Amino acid sequence: MTAEFSFKILATDGKARRGEVSMPRGTIRTPAFMPVGTGGTVKTMYMDQVRELGADIILGNTYHLMLRPGAERVAKLGGLHEFARWPWPILTDSGGFQVMSLSKLRKLTEKGVTFRSHIDGAPYEMTPERSIEIQGLLDSDIQMQLDECTALPAPRKEIERAMDLSLRWAERCKAAFGDQPGKAMFGIVQGGDAADLRVRSAQALAAMGLKGYAVGGLAVGEPQAVMLDMLDVTCPELPADKPRYLMGVGTPDDILKSVARGIDMFDCVMPTRAGRHGLAYTRRGKVNLRNARHADDHRPLDEESDCPAARDYSRAYLHHLVRSQEALGAMLLTWNNLSYYQKLMQDIRASIEAGNFAESAAEISEGWARGDIPAL
Amino acid sequence: MTAEFSFKILATDGKARRGEVSMPRGTIRTPAFMPVGTGGTVKTMYMDQVRELGADIILGNTYHLMLRPGAERVAKLGGLHEFARWPWPILTDSGGFQVMSLSKLRKLTEKGVTFRSHIDGAPYEMTPERSIEIQGLLDSDIQMQLDECTALPAPRKEIERAMDLSLRWAERCKAAFGDQPGKAMFGIVQGGDAADLRVRSAQALAAMGLKGYAVGGLAVGEPQAVMLDMLDVTCPELPADKPRYLMGVGTPDDILKSVARGIDMFDCVMPTRAGRHGLAYTRRGKVNLRNARHADDHRPLDEESDCPAARDYSRAYLHHLVRSQEALGAMLLTWNNLSYYQKLMQDIRASIEAGNFAESAAEISEGWARGDIPAL
Repeated sequence: MTAEFSFKILATDGKARRGEVSMPRGTIRTPAFMPVGTGGTVKTMYMDQVRELGADIILGNTYHLMLRPGAERVAKLGGLHEFARWPWPILTDSGGFQVMSLSKLRKLTEKGVTFRSHIDGAPYEMTPERSIEIQGLLDSDIQMQLDECTALPAPRKEIERAMDLSLRWAERCKAAFGDQPGKAMFGIVQGGDAADLRVRSAQALAAMGLKGYAVGGLAVGEPQAVMLDMLDVTCPELPADKPRYLMGVGTPDDILKSVARGIDMFDCVMPTRAGRHGLAYTRRGKVNLRNARHADDHRPLDEESDCPAARDYSRAYLHHLVRSQEALGAMLLTWNNLSYYQKLMQDIRASIEAGNFAESAAEISEGWARGDIPAL
Repeated sequence: MTAEFSFKILATDGKARRGEVSMPRGTIRTPAFMPVGTGGTVKTMYMDQVRELGADIILGNTYHLMLRPGAERVAKLGGLHEFARWPWPILTDSGGFQVMSLSKLRKLTEKGVTFRSHIDGAPYEMTPERSIEIQGLLDSDIQMQLDECTALPAPRKEIERAMDLSLRWAERCKAAFGDQPGKAMFGIVQGGDAADLRVRSAQALAAMGLKGYAVGGLAVGEPQAVMLDMLDVTCPELPADKPRYLMGVGTPDDILKSVARGIDMFDCVMPTRAGRHGLAYTRRGKVNLRNARHADDHRPLDEESDCPAARDYSRAYLHHLVRSQEALGAMLLTWNNLSYYQKLMQDIRASIEAGNFAESAAEISEGWARGDIPAL
């Protein structure tokens, strides 16, 4: 960890980067996957487990936390780290994405967004300044600018309007954030599936001299190829010496292909959400524990895993827990999934250091393609 | 642990007994509380945690396990200990209680009960012999006779009929169980709230020379005073050198008062169920974490507890988790509750050894009566 927020690249392999984001609360080994701790908890996990799996940073959702328990309350209780018992780095989103996807009666203007809570209908106003204020109250280490994220497909005009608005909001967020050496505020590239808009957005943000840059508005309905095309045009426009964060992405395959294009940080609900729906990520691809083929299978998910959830419990038991909707099923599968994601990131980092990222990525992909062990 | 199932009393204090039930899979320190692991899982807990809290034995529910995943399947998978990853002693109920309370279209005859599964309507037959067979397939260490449990209040005639039937079923279960030195089959005293029927049931079971005796059909709707009266008349009729198990009981107060009457073993869903409903058992009584008084309270549930769930998390955080219906809320409160129950049993055992059980029980009760710490 370092007193000032900093980023250094330790090794590169093609466009893939092995780096370190450092700040007072700790160091993030990149490429990094950030487990999602929506409402101050990584669902069904103890924070100790999340840490032990190798997570250097988790994500908190501003929208959820501002509604419940409330940002001012979290601040009075010592901040999100103290509240949720996670003393290491935390990144918070701006709240914008969930305002757009979850809230009711929202109204967007140049100034910001007014909306009503999806929980109790209470009215709120979210401006770039308020978003940064809330993230400060949460004591977030990496804060995100408020942006407007457009679901794809969308008319170019709409994408461009939202992208331009997001740039103006980035300036306001930068001003609101001010000078905080131990923390960072990241800008967010928008521009939908329009390459030229992505380039314009990235260049304008780069000119602002921010401490890090996110790519937003992807994995919002478009094919993977479109997402990768957008990364191909966006990453070269971003400063090489600053971390790059692809928001809300993604599958293990998305991650491999995005690292290959120069992305350093990821977050996604997939491993945690899938764990609550009976799905396990493994080196042999995705395994659906609801499937009757597991009912009599005494074998574990993956006998070679270091994770007790993958190694020590039979598929038959996991199947039983999932079918019976027992909490332990979600607990074990989420544990397995976060373990798999962190293992993937560890392998990615090691392969970049060793200079064989492409070969390693191909091997990992082959493992998924071979599929699960044959049924008994 | 011992090769043969055995019970010895280490100390007594009034009618309270400090003992040890021993068998090949381990030793149970009595008075003992057995966490309920209905469907092969103590809900929201890892088995390692359950063990670390001091549980020597857990309970499995024959009815739930026979329906899902099925007793023959569990047997093929190595038995319930292997399936659920609990290598220490397990007690199973006979299935009778849940057949009566959960199943559909049940029909009771001298032979047994036919019923349909509450899950998928599939037809089943449960006889004394089949109950023991299932408990054997699960590889249960302490098996219970099939009985008919009458909800109170009930007409005396009905109570007597069920009690007599249960005695005949006890004989059949004893024969079906046969000679298994490392395991035990317990008979169950019935007789509702009729003292003379309780005495007759206890005497008839005692004459069978079983390895242990349960008191059933209590905590089924009657006032606590009635339950204690029934224990007062029943316990003296049971052999002093055999363990006594009060089924499905109860609150911490029920446990204190039943130990005082000579009960050695307990099971109850209260600590686990309450944990899923925002309720915490503490040495200051029951605390409802849903209550708004906790929303800004940075203090833990009990700063003196050894249990991380009670000691390390703020009431504000627990309140937030409960209100947000986060799995971690149920995980932490269940952990706290099972910790409190095991601590209670440990204190009870120590006080019987020290010969001050009555004083210690009075002190514990005073703690509950004083109530929770004042709101901030």
